[in-house]
Amino acid sequence: MDRVLTNLSMVTMNTDSGYRLIENAMIGIENGKIMFAGEADHYDFHGHPDIVDCQGALVTPGFIDCHTHLVFAGNRAEEFEQRLQEVPYEDIAKAGGGILSTVQATRHASEETLYDLALKRLQGLKSDGVTTVEIKSGYGLTVDDELKMLRVARRLGKLEDINVVTTLLAAHALPPEYTNDPDGYISLVCEQIIPAAAAENLADAVDVFCEGIGFSTAQCKRVFDAAIKHGLAIKGHTEQLSNLGGSALAARMGALSVDHIEYLDNEGVAALAASGTVATLLPGAFYFLRETQMPPIDQLRNLDVPMAIATDFNPGTSPIASLRTMMNMACTLFRLTPEEALGGVTRHAAKALGHGTSKGQIEIGMDADLAAWDVNHPAELSYRIGVPDLKFRVVNGHLFHAHQAIAPHHSYTLKTVAEQSATGEQHVN
Amino acid sequence: MDRVLTNLSMVTMNTDSGYRLIENAMIGIENGKIMFAGEADHYDFHGHPDIVDCQGALVTPGFIDCHTHLVFAGNRAEEFEQRLQEVPYEDIAKAGGGILSTVQATRHASEETLYDLALKRLQGLKSDGVTTVEIKSGYGLTVDDELKMLRVARRLGKLEDINVVTTLLAAHALPPEYTNDPDGYISLVCEQIIPAAAAENLADAVDVFCEGIGFSTAQCKRVFDAAIKHGLAIKGHTEQLSNLGGSALAARMGALSVDHIEYLDNEGVAALAASGTVATLLPGAFYFLRETQMPPIDQLRNLDVPMAIATDFNPGTSPIASLRTMMNMACTLFRLTPEEALGGVTRHAAKALGHGTSKGQIEIGMDADLAAWDVNHPAELSYRIGVPDLKFRVVNGHLFHAHQAIAPHHSYTLKTVAEQSATGEQHVN
Ligand SMILES: [Zn+2]
Ligand SMILES: [Zn+2]
Repeated sequence: MDRVLTNLSMVTMNTDSGYRLIENAMIGIENGKIMFAGEADHYDFHGHPDIVDCQGALVTPGFIDCHTHLVFAGNRAEEFEQRLQEVPYEDIAKAGGGILSTVQATRHASEETLYDLALKRLQGLKSDGVTTVEIKSGYGLTVDDELKMLRVARRLGKLEDINVVTTLLAAHALPPEYTNDPDGYISLVCEQIIPAAAAENLADAVDVFCEGIGFSTAQCKRVFDAAIKHGLAIKGHTEQLSNLGGSALAARMGALSVDHIEYLDNEGVAALAASGTVATLLPGAFYFLRETQMPPIDQLRNLDVPMAIATDFNPGTSPIASLRTMMNMACTLFRLTPEEALGGVTRHAAKALGHGTSKGQIEIGMDADLAAWDVNHPAELSYRIGVPDLKFRVVNGHLFHAHQAIAPHHSYTLKTVAEQSATGEQHVN
Repeated sequence: MDRVLTNLSMVTMNTDSGYRLIENAMIGIENGKIMFAGEADHYDFHGHPDIVDCQGALVTPGFIDCHTHLVFAGNRAEEFEQRLQEVPYEDIAKAGGGILSTVQATRHASEETLYDLALKRLQGLKSDGVTTVEIKSGYGLTVDDELKMLRVARRLGKLEDINVVTTLLAAHALPPEYTNDPDGYISLVCEQIIPAAAAENLADAVDVFCEGIGFSTAQCKRVFDAAIKHGLAIKGHTEQLSNLGGSALAARMGALSVDHIEYLDNEGVAALAASGTVATLLPGAFYFLRETQMPPIDQLRNLDVPMAIATDFNPGTSPIASLRTMMNMACTLFRLTPEEALGGVTRHAAKALGHGTSKGQIEIGMDADLAAWDVNHPAELSYRIGVPDLKFRVVNGHLFHAHQAIAPHHSYTLKTVAEQSATGEQHVN
C-alpha cells in the first residue's frame, strides 16, 4: 500500500441508485489504483509510513470534464461586447468575428502559445476538482492545424496532475478554403485528417457538429465511418439548435456520447437507451446563448439514459471554466438533482469518455483519481459557487493541494527591488 | 512616493462616459492613496526603490461587492436539494428550513465560527479582484445576535487585504419570537438594535427588506427614521418580488442605494434619478430563483441612474461568491454592456456604499485599491468566468498576490509522515 487516506467521509458513486455518504472511511492507494475503500474500522494501518489525515474532508471521485474546447488562441470578448451594444451580427461577421476569428488566431498560434493559454484555463478547471479533462480540436480545420491542436492536448496530458482525453473535431466548421465545397472538406477530414491523427495516436475519439450551421447527418455519417475504420470512438454535437436526427445516427453507430441535445425527441432518447450512449448536457452554452428549449430530462430519466455534465469551455458560446458552475446550472436551469449533477461529472462523464470501468467511481481497481472537499454534504457541491471548497486532488495516486502553482515557468512572479533581497514572503509590504 | 507601478495599461473609470483604455501607463502610490496615474512618459522614476513591473497587466479599480450577507452559519444545500426533489415547500418549512434555519444556526454560532466561515467565502470574492466588500447582519434578529454579526464583519475589516463596510439589516425577517407582532419587532429594531449598533460604531448603514414577505413601507419608514436619527446611512432591499414603493420611499429619504428592483416602475426610477440613489442589480438571486421579471434597465439608463452590481452572497437565494460571475450574468441575463458591468463593480458600487469620492476609480487622491488582470481588453472581465485572470490586488497601497494564503491559521496543511521531515514542497509524492 503506497498511501492511506484516513479521517474522511466519502461518496463512491458506485451505483446508479445515487450517492450514499460513508462516514469515517479510509481509502488505500497502490500503483495509482484504489486498493480498498470503506469504513475505517475494517482496516488497521497504524504505523503506515504514508497516512494522510484528511481532517474530515468529504472525498468524491475526481471530477471529469468530458467536453471542452480548451485549446485555442484569441478570445471573443469584443464580439460579446458588440452584441450587447446591439451591433448587427452581419457587421460582426464581416469584420472577421465569429468562429472563423478563432480559427484564424489558432492557425497563427504556435504550439507553445496554445499550450500556455490552455494551461491557464486548465487551472480554473483543476480548482473545481477536475482530474480528467477531454479536449477537442476543431479550430485548425487543416491537417497540420488540427494535428497541432491535438499535440498540445496530448502535451497537457503529460502533466502529472491531470488526465487528458483527446477528440478530433475537424468537422466543427467549414473552413473558408471550402466555402462552396462542404463535401470536399469532409473528404479531407475522412481521407487525410482522421488517418493522420490515428497514425500519430493523437486522438482518442472523433466528434462532429451535426447542425444546419454545421454538417448534415450524411456528412457526419461519412466522418463516423472513417473514424470507426481507423479504430477511433465516435461522439457528436447534436440536436443543439434543431432536430436533424444526429443523436440517433450517432447512437446507432455506437457513439460514446451525444452532447447538447436540447432538441432531442423521444425517438432519439430511445436510440440512446438502446445503444448505451451517454447524454451530455452543456448548460453553460444554454445559459450563454439564452436558449429556452430544454433538453428532454424527464424522458432521459425514464429510460435510464446516463446524463453527463460538462463545461463545453469555448470562446464563442461557453467561456466558463468551472465545472461546479455547470453543476449548479444543471440543477437551476435543467432541474437536475444535486445527486444527478454529481453523477454527471463523475460516473457518467467517465462513461462518456469510454472510461466507465476505470474512472468516475471510488472502487477497488479503478484509477486513484479523487477530490477532497471542505463540505459536509455532497449537495453543497452543486449548490454553492465561488467558495474555495476544494482541499486537494489525487491524480493517479499523487496528491495535489488546491492552491498549488500551475507550473514553475507560469507562476506569476512580481518582484519589487526590496523583495529581491528578501526571502519568499507572500505579502509584499 | 512609496511605490510605483509600471508596465501596465489601465481603465480609470473616471467618468460615466465609459471605459477608455490607457496604454503604457504608470501609477504612483503614497500613504495608501493614488498620487498620480497616467501615461508613463509623463514621469521619470528611474531608480525608485519600489518599482513594480506589472508585465503588461490591465489595471482597474479594485472591485467592490456592495451587497453581501457574508456572515452566517450553516448552509441551505439540503433545502436546495429537496426543492429539486420536488419536496413541497411547506414540508421544508415545517422541518425548520428556510431563512429561519439560517437564523437558528447563526444564533448558535460563536463569533469565532462565524469569522472562520466568512473568511473562506471572502477568499472567493478576493480571487475575483474584490478589495472592498459590504457585509450585512440580518440572521441574528436580537440585539445581541445582530451585534455579534456586525462585530464579525468589523473584525474581517481589520484584515490588511480587504476593506469592509457594514450594514445593519435587523429588519430582514420576522424572528419567531415576534410572529404575531411585527410592529413590536420594528420597535425593538428602532429603539434597541439601531441605538446599540450606533453606540458601538458597528454599522455604517441600515438596510430593510421591504416586501410582502418582509416588512411594509410604513415599517421600513420607521426603521429609516431611526437610522437617520442616529446618523446612519440608509438603503433597502426593494421591489424584488413586487412593487410596494419601497424604492421611492428610500430615495425620498436619501438612501445610498436600492437593491434588486426587478419590479421598479417608472415613478420609482424617477425618484432614484431625483435623489441620486444607486440602483443595485443582483443577478445572482434573479438566476437562482429563476425569476423572469427584468429590472427596468432601459429606464434606468435613460435617466442616468447609476447601476451597481453585487453578489448578494447569501445561503438562501444567491450562494455565489463570485463578482465576475455577477458581471457575466448582468450582461447575459440583464443585457448590460461589459462597460456598464465594470462601472457596476467599481465607480457605482463605491457610490452605493457612500464612498463615491474615495473609491471605485483610479484618480489622484483616492484610495489605492486596484486589481491587476492578465487580460488585454476590459470586456474580458465580464465575458469569461473561471479562468484565473487576476494577477494581484492592491489594497490601501499594499500589494497582494492572487493566490496568497487566506491567513496562517487557515491555510490547509496536509502533512504525511514522510513530509514532516521534508521541507515545504508543494507536490506531495
Ligand atoms: Zn462543444
Ligand atoms: Zn440581500
